[in-house]
Amino acid sequence: MALLMKTDTDRGPWWRDEFHKALPDLEFRLFPETGSLGDIEFALVWKPPHGFLATLPRLRAIFSLGAGVDHLLDDPRLPARVPVVRLVDVQLTRQMTEYAVMHVLRLHRNGPQYEEQQRRRVWREVPQKQTGERRVGVMGVGEIGGSIARALAGLGFDVAGWSRRPRPLPGVAGFAGREQLPAFLARSEIVVCVLPLTPQTADILDARAFAAMPRGGYVINIGRGRLLVETDLLDALAAGQLAGAVLDVFRKEPLPADSPLWSHPAVTVTPHTAAMTDPRSAVAQVVDNIRLIRAGQAPLNAIDPRAGY
Amino acid sequence: MALLMKTDTDRGPWWRDEFHKALPDLEFRLFPETGSLGDIEFALVWKPPHGFLATLPRLRAIFSLGAGVDHLLDDPRLPARVPVVRLVDVQLTRQMTEYAVMHVLRLHRNGPQYEEQQRRRVWREVPQKQTGERRVGVMGVGEIGGSIARALAGLGFDVAGWSRRPRPLPGVAGFAGREQLPAFLARSEIVVCVLPLTPQTADILDARAFAAMPRGGYVINIGRGRLLVETDLLDALAAGQLAGAVLDVFRKEPLPADSPLWSHPAVTVTPHTAAMTDPRSAVAQVVDNIRLIRAGQAPLNAIDPRAGY
Repeated sequence: MALLMKTDTDRGPWWRDEFHKALPDLEFRLFPETGSLGDIEFALVWKPPHGFLATLPRLRAIFSLGAGVDHLLDDPRLPARVPVVRLVDVQLTRQMTEYAVMHVLRLHRNGPQYEEQQRRRVWREVPQKQTGERRVGVMGVGEIGGSIARALAGLGFDVAGWSRRPRPLPGVAGFAGREQLPAFLARSEIVVCVLPLTPQTADILDARAFAAMPRGGYVINIGRGRLLVETDLLDALAAGQLAGAVLDVFRKEPLPADSPLWSHPAVTVTPHTAAMTDPRSAVAQVVDNIRLIRAGQAPLNAIDPRAGY
Repeated sequence: MALLMKTDTDRGPWWRDEFHKALPDLEFRLFPETGSLGDIEFALVWKPPHGFLATLPRLRAIFSLGAGVDHLLDDPRLPARVPVVRLVDVQLTRQMTEYAVMHVLRLHRNGPQYEEQQRRRVWREVPQKQTGERRVGVMGVGEIGGSIARALAGLGFDVAGWSRRPRPLPGVAGFAGREQLPAFLARSEIVVCVLPLTPQTADILDARAFAAMPRGGYVINIGRGRLLVETDLLDALAAGQLAGAVLDVFRKEPLPADSPLWSHPAVTVTPHTAAMTDPRSAVAQVVDNIRLIRAGQAPLNAIDPRAGY
């Protein structure tokens, strides 16, 4: 009985060591060295080739190597009877929260303006809003977005959350559903997007969304690249409707070298590193779920395939 | 009976309005329009000319227009019998905490490396320490430094504090006195300095301090410019002993246009704006103290002139 892992990174051996320490009787295989497909009970994967998981006759669970599962659900031959499990990793949530807090603070505290002044050797105070006057909106308030909204509210920001269905959070103004999206956007000077990618959320950050925001606002996208229409973003920046953007995810990754986003003075680009799955904290969760499944129980954090997250 | 204000900013009229709302019977005067010196009971000042406060015969309290009082205590003719009161402003503490958290997060999350990669259009993950492995040291753990240390510990950093006398903080490793300074520096990859400037702390961040830190560390100075020896900092950066610095305060302010700090690729310069005193939140504190003094009581947050803070 074996676990097959597929990662886009070169950290497979690190994962192998962590699994060996946690569950020595589990055979660990690293894609594409699959060995006999009939031995594979568990798959821990990032972007498996379409149709591949359907070739594993004894598969008992599919673990996503990340919080999002869109890279699995877009496989038309995904085995319907096998549970798909997301990673709900405290370190991953912490890193996403750090990234969001860091960039919200930089924009709130006029970081771009002060960086430009430093280049020109200008010593001048930039008018500063109080924290409680700064309206931040978090799109997606599940495990990760909820942590971000709580952290920002704890720092004193005026925070709202938007989600498909109402999800009340203490100290956070709640908006839900498509009909409340314009009101949510209209009050949010800085929008942090951590939505899952589903047919309902694809392209949600488009020209219409940017136009609904206060003029001179900022967008931080750390969900998935296909949530945001990059050409609409560039137009909104050119028109001054948006003052800037922070992007960790892109429609095509790696971001192509000829993308205008790389050199745009108002855009911060990071290479999908807002959070990096860490074997030391993630293996324990996969191992716990393997033990549950072996004991005939349902795994934790299995997704609802109809909702898409 | 009047309050005389001296500010380096152009926001005097804003302060006048706030005082008028809070204490309509207080006459507000803005330096250098002092009027009759014998009417002045209260001074709210930033860097008054040496000897000037000694010319006010009926002065009952000197309020510093900021958390630091070094700009008052360096006046050799400062009236000894008049209490000197610091501003302990919740907004000021919040802003200093925001600034420190923002820059610690940027350094922790390899912001400089990712910014450099963006300029070169490079898509590459930079190895990332876990938050709990990142050792941050806060120099000065009073009102502001204590808030910073607590916020960083709350985010999961491994935080130590250093102060002249022991000041225990929950979740923060405590170091005190000159004899424990080397051990404190040796464990601190990122040093945040918010010390008051006194004869004991002047030049405390010098070549010896930088050499005591782990190689490749960072210094964030938001206390006073004279706490840090700028030429020693440039030498430590050139030698690679330090990897970077974030400076909000300087030995000479405004920072002269020919300072090499402006264009140093590893140095972030901001124009003494880590915190900006806000009349809306600060006036209430001054007014409360005026009421106490008029009632014959001692003002809150009066400093100990011998300690210098």
